Formats: sequence, C-alpha cells, structure tokens
Amino acid sequence: MEILAVNSGSSSFKFKLYNMPEETVISSGQIERIGLEDSIITIKHHDGEKYESTEKIADHKAAVQKLMDMLLDLNIIEDYSEIEGVGHRVVAGGEVFDHSVVVDDKVIEQINDIAEMAPLHNPANLIGIKAFKKILPEATSVVVFDTAFHQTMPEENYIYSVPYEWYEKYGVRRYGAHGTSHRYVSAEAAKLMGRPLEDLKIVSCHVGAGASICAIKNGKSFDISMGFTPLTGITMATRSGDIDVSLVSFMMNKLHIDSIQEMVDKLNHESGLLGISGISPDSRDILAVEDTNHRAKLAMDIMNKDIVKYIGQYAFEMGGLDGIIFTAGVGENSQETREDVMKRLAFAGVTINEEENAKRGDVANIVSGPDSKVTVMRIPTDEEVMIARDVLALSKK
Amino acid sequence: MEILAVNSGSSSFKFKLYNMPEETVISSGQIERIGLEDSIITIKHHDGEKYESTEKIADHKAAVQKLMDMLLDLNIIEDYSEIEGVGHRVVAGGEVFDHSVVVDDKVIEQINDIAEMAPLHNPANLIGIKAFKKILPEATSVVVFDTAFHQTMPEENYIYSVPYEWYEKYGVRRYGAHGTSHRYVSAEAAKLMGRPLEDLKIVSCHVGAGASICAIKNGKSFDISMGFTPLTGITMATRSGDIDVSLVSFMMNKLHIDSIQEMVDKLNHESGLLGISGISPDSRDILAVEDTNHRAKLAMDIMNKDIVKYIGQYAFEMGGLDGIIFTAGVGENSQETREDVMKRLAFAGVTINEEENAKRGDVANIVSGPDSKVTVMRIPTDEEVMIARDVLALSKK
Repeated sequence: MEILAVNSGSSSFKFKLYNMPEETVISSGQIERIGLEDSIITIKHHDGEKYESTEKIADHKAAVQKLMDMLLDLNIIEDYSEIEGVGHRVVAGGEVFDHSVVVDDKVIEQINDIAEMAPLHNPANLIGIKAFKKILPEATSVVVFDTAFHQTMPEENYIYSVPYEWYEKYGVRRYGAHGTSHRYVSAEAAKLMGRPLEDLKIVSCHVGAGASICAIKNGKSFDISMGFTPLTGITMATRSGDIDVSLVSFMMNKLHIDSIQEMVDKLNHESGLLGISGISPDSRDILAVEDTNHRAKLAMDIMNKDIVKYIGQYAFEMGGLDGIIFTAGVGENSQETREDVMKRLAFAGVTINEEENAKRGDVANIVSGPDSKVTVMRIPTDEEVMIARDVLALSKK
Repeated sequence: MEILAVNSGSSSFKFKLYNMPEETVISSGQIERIGLEDSIITIKHHDGEKYESTEKIADHKAAVQKLMDMLLDLNIIEDYSEIEGVGHRVVAGGEVFDHSVVVDDKVIEQINDIAEMAPLHNPANLIGIKAFKKILPEATSVVVFDTAFHQTMPEENYIYSVPYEWYEKYGVRRYGAHGTSHRYVSAEAAKLMGRPLEDLKIVSCHVGAGASICAIKNGKSFDISMGFTPLTGITMATRSGDIDVSLVSFMMNKLHIDSIQEMVDKLNHESGLLGISGISPDSRDILAVEDTNHRAKLAMDIMNKDIVKYIGQYAFEMGGLDGIIFTAGVGENSQETREDVMKRLAFAGVTINEEENAKRGDVANIVSGPDSKVTVMRIPTDEEVMIARDVLALSKK
C-alpha cells in the first residue's frame, strides 16, 4: 500500500510517498511559501528526476490539491485512492499521547489543546492534517508525536524541581523532542550491534540545528536533554541549551529588555554556536576557520564537551553504557565532532576506527574500533519511514 | 598568633577565633539581629561554656565593639592587639580575584564593583570588613572569595552558550560558589586517600541548603554545578537548580507575573525540595515521611539522582573518577542520601561500608567499602579554618 509521510509547517509542507511494507520511496518533495504569490512546488521521482514549479498557492488545502494533481500528471500515482494512509508529524503530544494514533475529531481537539506548549508547531501541524483529510478523506490519517517516545521516562527524570503545582495545574514537566528519530536510530543501533534492543543502554545524540541527547534504556526513552521545550540541553546552532535563569534577569536589566519572550527569542535564535563564535550557526562554517579563530574553536569545543557531559550523566543515570549513536545533520556528517567526542571518551575505553569514521552517506556504520568498550555508531536518521511504519501498523488494526 | 575568621551577613555575623598555626579554636559565636532592639550575642568559649546576651546593637561597628568587649570581659583575650589577623568570607570575587588578598581601598572598591553579581551578599560582606577594620585597624585584614577557587576552570567549562558579548561586556559566565569548602574538603580527601591531590580526579558534593557539585582535577576546580549565580545545578532546599528558561516565560504568562525578578525569587525560595515535596525545605523533615508520602520520596529521589548525574558528567568531563566527597549539612549528616547515591553508583564498582556510612560527627571517614573502585568520603567542611589559613599565609608575606 502507498503511504504519505507529511511534515507540515505554517507555510510549507514536506512529504515522502512510500510503498509499504517494502519501505521504498516512490516520490518525495515539498511545497513552500504557501499563501504567497510565488509558492514553490518541488517533486522528486524515485528515478531521480525532479520537477519544480512556481505559482500562487492560496492555502494548505490548495497545496495538497496541487500535490495530488502533480502526482497524477507525473504518473507517480494513477488514482487518489492508491494513497491509503497519511501520517503526520506533530511536535507536541503532551502527556495525552504516548504513541501514534488515528486522527479523529477528538484527537484534533487534543492536539489543539496542547498547542500552547508548542505554539510555533502544533497549529501548523494541524493545518496540514486538516488539509490532507479534506483532499484524501478515505485515507487513514495518523499522527506521530515527537514527544510520545519519551512518555516512558521515570517520574524522577521528568519532574522539575519547581513548585509541584506547576506540573499538576499547567503541565510543566520535561517532554523532550526528536522522539521519532531516537526511536528509529535506537532500533537500527541494535541491528548494527547484533544485540536485542531490550538489553541495551544507549545514548542517542541527535545533533542537527536543534540537538537532543537521549538516554535509551532497554529500548525505552529514559531521559532526554530537551526539556519542557527544545531550548535546553546541549549547545545548538542558535539555541543556548542549559543556562542559569538568573543570567536572564541580569541581562534583561543590562539590555533594558522588559519582555521575557524577547529574551527567550535571543536564547533560541542568537545563542548557541552562533552566539559563541559570532560567525555562523552552521558547524561547517565554524570548522572551516577554527584553526585561526579562537571563538570558533571555543564554540565547537563547548558543543562537543556538552555532548560528552550528557553521555556521562546518562551513562551514570542508566547504570551503564553499551552504545552511542550520532545522527541528524551534524551527527551524521561531522567526522570532526564524532572524532573529538570519541577522543574525550578514551578514558572509558572508547577507540576510533578512523576509516569508518570518515565515511558519509546513507548507510549506517560503526565508527568506533573493534576493541572499543562502547560501540559508537553513525546512523542516518529517518523520521519519515517511522511515520510510514506507524501508519501501516495502525491501518492494519 | 590569633586570627578571626568572619562571615558577615546584612544583619549578623559569625566568627571563629583561632590560635594559628595550631588551628585550635579559642572561641566562636555570632551576633544576630544587628540594628534591631533585641540583638542577640552568642559567644562560645573553647572550654564549652556559652555566653548569651540580648540587647540593642545599632550597627555592625557597634557589634564588633561589643564582641571585642565581651572577649576581654570573658578573658578570652587580654588585649585587642592579640588579634593579629581578620579574614572575611566574600561571596563573589568575579574574575578579578583568583586567590585571597589583603584588604586595601582598591580591594574594597573592586568588591563593591562586583556587588551586582551578588547583590544580597557582597554589600553585607563589605559592611563587616569595614566595621572590623575600624575597631581592629592594626590587624591584617584579608578577604577570602567563594569564587576564587573556581577561577582555574577551563574556558569551555565557564563560557555560556549565549551571545559572547554578554561575557565580554557584562561578565556573564560560570563563577560557581562554595570554593573555600571545596578547596578544604578536597585537600582532606587526598589525606584520607593517602594520595597526592595533584594526581586525583575528585567530585566534591557540597550539599546543604545550597548545594554545589564540583569537579576537582589534579587539585584544581575544573567545573562546578552552580553557575553565574547559585541558582543552578542540583535540586536544593528551596532552589530549583537547572531548569528550562522557556518554563519561566510560560509560567509568567500563566501566573500573570510581569517581573522576571519575581520568578527568579520563586525559583530561589519556593522550588527545590520544598517545591517538589510541598512539605519542607529540610531533607530531615522529608525523609521522616517519605515512606508514606509520594511527593516526599520523589523530592529525595530527584535530589539524589541529580547528584548522580553531576558525578557522571564530571567523571566523563575529567576523564576519570578517583574519589567522591560528601560535605555540608546534608552531605555530612544524611546517611540516607549517601547510601542512595552509592547504590545508584554500584554499576561503576562503588560499594558501601554500612558501619562507616552510619557514622556522624567531626571526623572525616571513608564510607565506601575497601573494594570500592571509587573512594567515597564523608568530610565535614571547615570554611573558617581555610580563612584562618589564608590570613596566616598572607600575614607572613
């Protein structure tokens, strides 16, 4: 059966069309700038050919209609009815959703209720869900939550040390993020290691522009560096990760800023690698000059050290460490970050396989040496295939 | 020579009078409620007798005068001139002070300049310094900074992942705290372990109402859980430790609070063990009911887990771990916390000596088993003797 995996933003969506259960990608692409005069539609055929067009697309519903028309025109599908399932990524599932579910009116209402925890994402996700439901009413519509995987965290790892009423009344707790990615790569890691996931203690480092480090104990999320929101944890491209709240009040005073939201924006958009280096949020730009630029080197050192600190705290929290995963943009592609982190872990018996660590591309590989006491892996993530798998599983029920 | 170690607050000070270099305590005590109608003076003689009186003391200068009069009256000293040195604890030394110094006008000015980083403490410390200088002008006056020990931290451990200008222009960085305590107990730990401090990787857990976990590598502070201010790190009696700044903006909205300072106050005074348990900031009160009260147990679990997380991240950051120190109120006296932490560290080869761990009192002891791969120690802290030692060292110059 054909299944669409969709990731909707407020003015765009990305999609991948799968043949399931084979997990082959039939087509992929995106529609950007929805609502503007020059919306851009990009569709890739599995044979590698790419179609692009620019025209006005008024809203998400029109965008979905346009996508379906193009899939027909390009002979990628022969009829709407071929697409039997559509899976949507939803950023925040709160405590309501600990697994993927088929969309109904109640689910839409619940996602809407949780929206204040992810005001930038959930409403945008909902627009996409509703648009696809209108154009493809017969397809099974499924939502896959970034937070659901982390609902297995023990209470002592998700309750903040603040007035308990903030949790009871307002839902303030650690929710985490990137759950679909951590779920996918941890399953792949078990395959690479040739051991059952249920027996493993793994730290998964999803390091992209956003970054989260996840402790996965016996196949379940045990702790995660992102917290109530994706602001916390390690140094990210432009996000601060963990800091001292008193620093925020001190700087509001210094900068004559009255609005806490303005400060949170600075911590989300002007901090991290960009803030430290003053050069770029992109680690490639920073690595290019780190030999001659002190702040560039400092930015990378701080990020790599943060990764090591989280690996350490999670190893101690789980009571052991069998594997470390690097995934997402930086994790998959930065040989330098992986190498520096592994060097810092030499004391724990981690060794490097330099040839393997230099590899790139879509095939997961073990980058630590054969004698390494902890298996370090580079595993390209694939959130879309997880979405398609969940749609398939729920379609069967 | 006789040396006074002084810890001044805004309406009180504590003192200990030492005979140095023997480090014997001749007398100790405090004056509280300075400026009120019923100021309380308490003086303990080394023979164990305690003198207490209540009367109006107008200000710190009058309080110092009163103290000296009483020391004479009680025949503890025969003449002011016997007291050849006075050492003062100062909370914040910024980047200016990386060791203790003799007080002069410039030093006073510098402490004053740094006051905005410790608005509750530095001005109060200064009042005490000035009062003692007036009454004992001939004594060598020395300041000992809580932050000085941490000035050895590497840059990657003290720079926050925020716009770098915040550091350059406003001094926003990790300063840490409890430096005098961590310095004292780490030196004692080396003695207990019978190894040179310079060879050791130690995590020092100063857990009192305030709590900080310090990584001490080769005798130098390498990292510390308290940050720009003492708000961060592990769960404390009433302080939150590490949280997500976005949670602050979210709760300001929910509680209709406009002032960030009001929120920082809540994180300093209504959070931590008190916030989670809803019972008390005192771990003894919480331990008393934890068998029947879920939130009480949760509060202790979170604090103990936080300690383990910091031990783990610092072990990984330092690249090894030889010793763990417990000190300060909870660290020295809570057998339960030490036991729970050691149990959580069993995977790392930590074993417990239950008899030793049950001990209390002023004598430091090793609480892990003889076969433990990491030596765990209970070491009563003594910040005052460190102050007296620094005064002695600087008096000789």
